Amino acid sequence: MGLFTKDIETMNDLFVHQLKDIYYAEKRILKALPDMAGKATGPELKQGFETHLRETEGQIQRLEQVFQLHGVEPEAVKCPAIDGIIDEADDVAGDVDDKQVLDAALVAAAQAVEHYEISRYGTLVAWAQLLGRDDCARLLQQNLDEEKATDEKLTMLAKNGINSLAA
Amino acid sequence: MGLFTKDIETMNDLFVHQLKDIYYAEKRILKALPDMAGKATGPELKQGFETHLRETEGQIQRLEQVFQLHGVEPEAVKCPAIDGIIDEADDVAGDVDDKQVLDAALVAAAQAVEHYEISRYGTLVAWAQLLGRDDCARLLQQNLDEEKATDEKLTMLAKNGINSLAA
Repeated sequence: MGLFTKDIETMNDLFVHQLKDIYYAEKRILKALPDMAGKATGPELKQGFETHLRETEGQIQRLEQVFQLHGVEPEAVKCPAIDGIIDEADDVAGDVDDKQVLDAALVAAAQAVEHYEISRYGTLVAWAQLLGRDDCARLLQQNLDEEKATDEKLTMLAKNGINSLAA
Repeated sequence: MGLFTKDIETMNDLFVHQLKDIYYAEKRILKALPDMAGKATGPELKQGFETHLRETEGQIQRLEQVFQLHGVEPEAVKCPAIDGIIDEADDVAGDVDDKQVLDAALVAAAQAVEHYEISRYGTLVAWAQLLGRDDCARLLQQNLDEEKATDEKLTMLAKNGINSLAA
């Protein structure tokens, strides 16, 4: 968002802004995932990142459908939140040599990303419904459900697999 | 984290780093909350931010207890993730004139903050247990439970109150 503009006046403006924000975030995540998959050493974690890469491609397509349904050109606005989350992940993961500790750090980073997306999609679903855009809400809900499922898979990996290996 | 240092080698290092990260985040949130309470117009939301300000003070004290139990000096390390989330909140909220739209933006921003904390405390509880620090895990779990409860209150506000006012 521009610091010198007043371009959010209505709930619709806020919805469209948030849509552009998560569109940016998903594209940023799409770029980060191959690197995370490359760093991961546990086969389940590596495969999880690869699966989520394909899911993210589908989520971006759904977002483009939402833009289209809502009559707005797909556009990304810079999202300092996801930039910060991914920069921090890169920084911590770049610091770790031990493979299992690295995997634990990668799971934690991925869960921070997932929770960011869960909060944003939760908000977007509520706002789409409020604006009478049940068609958009349904697509956004699909993305939300996928992010929640990914977060649960990561929790399982953290609790059962990677963490005990790294102990 | 320093980009030129290799200071995370073990799960314990990772745990302590994450503890310093959330300690920074909580202090940053403590500074942001009076501003959010000041901007909020709905009385329930304003009061919610004020309540969470007091909770955050308690959470910081619990984190200091965890540092002490674990024999580490309390220290904050810069957390680009929470900086990004709060900068984005300031930017969007600074853009909005309409009071109800502003409240909706503030709720969304606060939920992004809560979800960041939920992901970090979830990780910290798991790592504390893994390291055999059930004493630390119990304190971190209390913070996690408070963050989850705050997120649920915000969801209620978003669904029942603020969003319908802003429609």
